[in-house]
Amino acid sequence: MAGNTFGKLFSLTTYGESHGPALGGVIDGCPSGIALDLEAIQNELDRRKPGQSAIVTQRKEPDTVKFHSGIFEGKTTGTSIGFVIENTNQKSHDYTHIKDSYRPSHADYTYDQKYGFRDYRGGGRSSARETACRVVAGAIAKQMLQCIEITAYVSGVGNMTLDKPYTELDLTKTETNMVRCPDEAMASKMETYIKEVRSKGDTVGGIVSCVIKNMPAGLGEPVFDKLHAQLGKAMLSINAVKGFEYGSGFQGSTMYGSDHNDAFNTDGTTKTNFSGGIQGGISNGMDIYFNVAFKPVATLIQEYETIDKEGKVVQMHGKGRHDPCVVPRAVPIVEAMAALVIADFYLINKLYK
Amino acid sequence: MAGNTFGKLFSLTTYGESHGPALGGVIDGCPSGIALDLEAIQNELDRRKPGQSAIVTQRKEPDTVKFHSGIFEGKTTGTSIGFVIENTNQKSHDYTHIKDSYRPSHADYTYDQKYGFRDYRGGGRSSARETACRVVAGAIAKQMLQCIEITAYVSGVGNMTLDKPYTELDLTKTETNMVRCPDEAMASKMETYIKEVRSKGDTVGGIVSCVIKNMPAGLGEPVFDKLHAQLGKAMLSINAVKGFEYGSGFQGSTMYGSDHNDAFNTDGTTKTNFSGGIQGGISNGMDIYFNVAFKPVATLIQEYETIDKEGKVVQMHGKGRHDPCVVPRAVPIVEAMAALVIADFYLINKLYK
Amino acid sequence: MAGNTFGKLFSLTTYGESHGPALGGVIDGCPSGIALDLEAIQNELDRRKPGQSAIVTQRKEPDTVKFHSGIFEGKTTGTSIGFVIENTNQKSHDYTHIKDSYRPSHADYTYDQKYGFRDYRGGGRSSARETACRVVAGAIAKQMLQCIEITAYVSGVGNMTLDKPYTELDLTKTETNMVRCPDEAMASKMETYIKEVRSKGDTVGGIVSCVIKNMPAGLGEPVFDKLHAQLGKAMLSINAVKGFEYGSGFQGSTMYGSDHNDAFNTDGTTKTNFSGGIQGGISNGMDIYFNVAFKPVATLIQEYETIDKEGKVVQMHGKGRHDPCVVPRAVPIVEAMAALVIADFYLINKLYK
Amino acid sequence: MAGNTFGKLFSLTTYGESHGPALGGVIDGCPSGIALDLEAIQNELDRRKPGQSAIVTQRKEPDTVKFHSGIFEGKTTGTSIGFVIENTNQKSHDYTHIKDSYRPSHADYTYDQKYGFRDYRGGGRSSARETACRVVAGAIAKQMLQCIEITAYVSGVGNMTLDKPYTELDLTKTETNMVRCPDEAMASKMETYIKEVRSKGDTVGGIVSCVIKNMPAGLGEPVFDKLHAQLGKAMLSINAVKGFEYGSGFQGSTMYGSDHNDAFNTDGTTKTNFSGGIQGGISNGMDIYFNVAFKPVATLIQEYETIDKEGKVVQMHGKGRHDPCVVPRAVPIVEAMAALVIADFYLINKLYK
Repeated sequence: MAGNTFGKLFSLTTYGESHGPALGGVIDGCPSGIALDLEAIQNELDRRKPGQSAIVTQRKEPDTVKFHSGIFEGKTTGTSIGFVIENTNQKSHDYTHIKDSYRPSHADYTYDQKYGFRDYRGGGRSSARETACRVVAGAIAKQMLQCIEITAYVSGVGNMTLDKPYTELDLTKTETNMVRCPDEAMASKMETYIKEVRSKGDTVGGIVSCVIKNMPAGLGEPVFDKLHAQLGKAMLSINAVKGFEYGSGFQGSTMYGSDHNDAFNTDGTTKTNFSGGIQGGISNGMDIYFNVAFKPVATLIQEYETIDKEGKVVQMHGKGRHDPCVVPRAVPIVEAMAALVIADFYLINKLYK
Repeated sequence: MAGNTFGKLFSLTTYGESHGPALGGVIDGCPSGIALDLEAIQNELDRRKPGQSAIVTQRKEPDTVKFHSGIFEGKTTGTSIGFVIENTNQKSHDYTHIKDSYRPSHADYTYDQKYGFRDYRGGGRSSARETACRVVAGAIAKQMLQCIEITAYVSGVGNMTLDKPYTELDLTKTETNMVRCPDEAMASKMETYIKEVRSKGDTVGGIVSCVIKNMPAGLGEPVFDKLHAQLGKAMLSINAVKGFEYGSGFQGSTMYGSDHNDAFNTDGTTKTNFSGGIQGGISNGMDIYFNVAFKPVATLIQEYETIDKEGKVVQMHGKGRHDPCVVPRAVPIVEAMAALVIADFYLINKLYK
Repeated sequence: MAGNTFGKLFSLTTYGESHGPALGGVIDGCPSGIALDLEAIQNELDRRKPGQSAIVTQRKEPDTVKFHSGIFEGKTTGTSIGFVIENTNQKSHDYTHIKDSYRPSHADYTYDQKYGFRDYRGGGRSSARETACRVVAGAIAKQMLQCIEITAYVSGVGNMTLDKPYTELDLTKTETNMVRCPDEAMASKMETYIKEVRSKGDTVGGIVSCVIKNMPAGLGEPVFDKLHAQLGKAMLSINAVKGFEYGSGFQGSTMYGSDHNDAFNTDGTTKTNFSGGIQGGISNGMDIYFNVAFKPVATLIQEYETIDKEGKVVQMHGKGRHDPCVVPRAVPIVEAMAALVIADFYLINKLYK
Repeated sequence: MAGNTFGKLFSLTTYGESHGPALGGVIDGCPSGIALDLEAIQNELDRRKPGQSAIVTQRKEPDTVKFHSGIFEGKTTGTSIGFVIENTNQKSHDYTHIKDSYRPSHADYTYDQKYGFRDYRGGGRSSARETACRVVAGAIAKQMLQCIEITAYVSGVGNMTLDKPYTELDLTKTETNMVRCPDEAMASKMETYIKEVRSKGDTVGGIVSCVIKNMPAGLGEPVFDKLHAQLGKAMLSINAVKGFEYGSGFQGSTMYGSDHNDAFNTDGTTKTNFSGGIQGGISNGMDIYFNVAFKPVATLIQEYETIDKEGKVVQMHGKGRHDPCVVPRAVPIVEAMAALVIADFYLINKLYK
C-alpha cells in the first residue's frame, strides 16, 4: 500500500536509504527451477553502478548483491528471494548543510510534508540508489523470460536527439560507449556535451528508448492493467522521469487514422507498427518500443538560494559527486523495469490460456 | 489480478461489454457520510455520452446510472457502492462482418490471441463504452475530494495545438464548445477540422491536458507508486492513449538543471513549476498538470483490406457510428481517472499523518 | 481494501444491502472458454434462498441471478463477469423500531461505531443476504474446477452432533432432507429440535462440515497464504461463524506425534489423514475436510431489553421472518467459499508448475 | 501473490530458509515518527528463540535482528523497514538422509509436488524458523498500537487443559515459567508432562489462547475481511496450527440464542461477551479472545518407516534438536500475528472515520 512493492505475480518489494547500512529486497513469485546466472545479475548492477565511467557520479560503491534465500543448488526454489546490497560508502559525508533546508526540485520538502521529518543523508529513500534493487530483480526477470529481448539505449541528451527509429540502429553498439547511445558518432557528441555541462556544474536531461523483441502475443490485461499502462507506470516510477510514450506516441496524436492503422500481413504480423506492439492493452507479437523522458538532475555544483524549514532564505552550494546527466546509468534501470512488467504479464498469461 | 480493478483504498471494479445487457461496477472504500449529488454524477456521464454533439458518434445511449447499494438517505454508508448502466441500443447492429476477421489497430486480434475467442459485437470489452463506469466512480471521487479542482480540456487535434500554457487559458470556457477547447478561436478551427476529417471517413488524434488545483502537499508514495506514476498508468489505461507527460514533460528532457530547478518562495511555493506539482513522487501543493496523447480512432468509414482468422485477405468496409476524433469525449474520462488517483492517495495520506 | 473483495486470481467483489434495490458482484479472473451451466448456478442459489423449507426463514425472495457481462454464446470470455440479484421483498417492513436502537449481538452498534450511521433496514450490509453473491461466484468456481468435489453438510445442531467421520457417511443423502444432514435418523431428530426451538422464539447454533475430494496435490502457498489459512478466513468471513478446524483440528492438539503422523503408502497417499489433506499449507492429494462452527442467530422472536443510541434502556420485541438455526442454509455458502479458495489456488498453481 | 506478504496497510514480506545464510523481511506502511524500542523487539525474538529453556529445541541460534532501513535517529521514517536475522548455526548438520525421502506429516512431499524440488536442509522454507520474522514485525506493530494489550498464553498441552476463562487468570504470570501457562500449578504439571513426552522421543500438541484488551470499537471490515476472519487466517498461517475459535467458539454452536446474546449495558459495553469483542466482523470495544490449536510436532526422535521419491520404503530415524511441544515458543508468535492484524485494521480505520 505504501508503494514499496512492484508487480503482482512476479513482485519486488524493496527497502533502503542512500546512506543506511544496506539496501535490499524480496522477489516473490519467481517460479521454481530456473537456473540463475548470478554473474549476469551482478553485471546488470555494474551497468548501473556509480563510478563506472568518466561521465557519471564518481561516488565509489561496489554494489555487490548477496542473496539470502530462494536459491538452492543454483536454481530458484519457488520461495521468496531475499537479497541485500550493502552501502559501503555512506559515512564519509557531512549532511548537516541540508538537514534543515530544502533543495529546489528535490524531494526534501515533500518528504517533510508527508512524513513530518526525513533521513536527509544523501536524499534518504528518495535517492536513486533505490533503483539498484530494481536492477537485481529485473535481471532475474530477464533470465526467466529467456528469449524475450529487452534493450534500452540513450536516444537523447539535452537537445541532441537520435532521429533514427530503432529499426535503423545497431543496438549491439549500445554498450560500446559510456553514453550508451548505439550511434557512435552521436554518442561521441553526447559525451563531449555531457562533459561540458558538468564542467559548468550544471546538469542536463535526456531520453532513454527501449525495444522489446520476440514478444509473445496475448500479454496484457484489457482494462486498467493494459500492458502499456503498466510499462508507463514502471517507467514513471524511476527517479527523474517526466514522460512516457509508446509506439507512435505523442506524434501519433497528430496523425490520421488512415495513416496510423497497422494493416495486417497474412501471418498476423503488421506492415507498419504504429501500435508499438500493443493493441487494446495486449501484445500482438510485434516489437514493443517506447521512449522515457528524464529531467535534468536537480543537484547542481553551483551556488544557489533556497529556504529552510522555517521559510528563511539560505545560501547553499551543491557539492558531492553527482551525475551531470542521468540517462547513461538509467539504461539498465529502464530495462529492469520493463523486464519486471513483462515477467508479471508472462506469468498471468500462463493462467488464462 | 485480471485488471478490472483500479485503486487500492478508493477502488473501482468494472464489468461490461459494448453490446451486453449492461455495464456496471463496484466502488469500494468510499468513506461514509458523504452527501452525494446524484445529478452531478449523471452530468459527468452526459459529458461522455455518445450523441451529445455534432462531432461525436451519433449512437444513441442515454447512459443512465442506477445505484444499487452503499448510499442511504442521500449519503454514502461506507459499504461498497454498486451501480449499473444499461445498454439500451445494443441490438440494432449486424456484426457478422467482423466476427471472423481482424480490424487493423483494433483489439480483435489480440483478444483472440489472449482468450481464444471474443465477444465481437462492437468491440466487446475493448470498447471505450467501458469508460462510462470510470466516469461514475470519478464523479464520486470528485465529490469526496471537495475543493480539489480537476479540470481537463482539449489542447490538440491533429496538428492543431494550443501553444499557451494552462495558466494563460480561461478553463471555464472549456464546456462552452463541443470540442472542449478553452480557447474559442482554436475550438472553432478544431471543430471545422474534425468535421472535414469525418467527411472523408477518416479520423484524427489529439491531446487532452489536465490541471489539478488546490492540491494538498504530501500526497503520493515515494517509490513505485509515485503520484505521477499512478496518474500515468491511469491515463495510459484509457482507450487509445499513446503517451503521458507531466510538468515539463518531454520538453524537460532537453533542459539544463539550472533552468529546470524550481526555486522556492519563502512560503514553500515555488517560483516556477517545471516539477508539475510533484517532487519525488509526492505532491508539493503547486498545481499538477499533464498531457495525454490519443491516437486516431481505428474505425474508418472506408473500404480496406484485412485478414480473417485463417489469415486470408478479406475486404471490409467500416460502418457504424464512430467518433472522428476521440478527445472531446475523453475530457471527462481524463478528469475521472485523475480523480480516482487523487482519491486513493488522499485516503492513503490520512493514514500516515 | 475495505474488504468487499475475496480472492486474488479468481476474485469476487460484492455489493448490496438487505433492503436496497439489488445485490450484485463482479467475478474477475475466470479463464475464458468455460461453458457455463447457468441452471446449475441458479440451483445453488435456490439451496440458499429463504423460504425453501419449513425450518428456515419464510421471507419470500426468488433470488434470481442475472448476468450482465463476461459470458458470450454460453462460454466465459475471460473478461469480468458482472451479475445482479434484485431484492424483490424489501419494501414490506417497518424498521423504525430498530433505527435508533442496538439489537444485542447484531452489528448495529459496531456499524455505528465504524461508519457513524447505518442502513438499518434488515441489517443492511451486515445481513447474511450478502452471501447470495458468494453462492453465485462459488457456483462458477465449481464449474471451473470440474472434477474436484466440494460437499458440505450439517453435522451438528445445538448439542446434537454427528459423531461419525465423513468417511462413514453417505454424503449423497445430504440434500434429501431439509436439515441437510446426511444421516437420516439424525436429520429427523435435528428437524424436530429446530422446530421446537423456533416455537419458543429462540434460535440455536450448529456445525457445518465440508469435504473436498479429488484434490490435486500441490495447491496452496507455503507461508501466509497456506491453503487451510485461506479456507479458515473464507469460512470465518461467513456471517455467524465462530470457529474453524481442519483435519484433526482441536482434537489433534491433544494427540501425540507418534499417533498423529500420517504414514505414507508407496503411492504417496497416506494411511491415515489427520493432516486433513494439507501439509505445510499445501495440498497432498488426500481429502481435505474441515468443520465450521456457527453461533445461534441473534434475532429472537421474544421480548428483550436493550439500549438506544443515547444509551437509554428500551424494550424491544423481535419480529420478522428469521432462521431458527442457520446451518441448513449455510451448507451451500460453505461450499461456495471453499470453491472460491480452491479456484484461486488452482489458478495460482498453473503458474508455478 | 505467492503468499510471502501479510497485511495490506501495515504489511510484512518475508524470506528465508532454515539453513540459508539469513532470514529477513520488509515492513511496509509503518507510519513515520514512531520512537522504536529496539531492545523490546529483540526481547520478543528471545521469547521465541531456540534453546531458551529445558523444554524447547536445544539448537543454538542467537536470532539477532539487524535493521537496514526505515529508522532514523530512533524513529520510523515512514519508508519501508528492512531487517535481517542471520542463521549462525546452519552448517553443522548432515541432511542427506532426508534429501530423497519424505518425512510423514512434514511438507517434504507437498513442496516437491508444488515446486518440483526443494531445499531439504532443516525443512527449508517450511521450517518454523520463518516465524522469527513475524515476531520482529509484530513487535513493531505492538509499539505502534501502544495501549492495546495483546497477551497470549498456553492453555493446553495434550490432554491437560486450563479450564478457567482468561478473566480468572493472572496473565502477568505467563512469563514466570517455561511453559508460558499463567496458572502455576498447571504450568508445573505441563512441564513435567512435556519432559516425559520428550524422553520417549515423542511430541504432543497444545492450545495457545490470546486476549486483546483496550481494543477500540469500530475495527474490522464488514464482509470478507472481518476482524476475526483475518485473525483466523493469521493464526492458521502459523506452522502446525489446526484450528481457531474466538469468543464462544465451537462451544457457542451448541448454545441457544437466548443464552448467547450479549445484552448491552447503558455505556455500550455488554454484560456477557460470547461475541468475543467482535460483532459483524467489527470490534465492539470489549476484549477479544481466541484459542489456537497446535498439532504435535511431526519430528520424532524415533525409528520409522517412510518412502523416498521413487516410492520405495525406507527406514528413517529422527534426529536433531526439535521441540517436544511447540506451544511455549508459539506464544510470542501468536501475539505477533495478532498485532499485525490489529495494526492493519487500526490504520484502515483511520481512513474511514
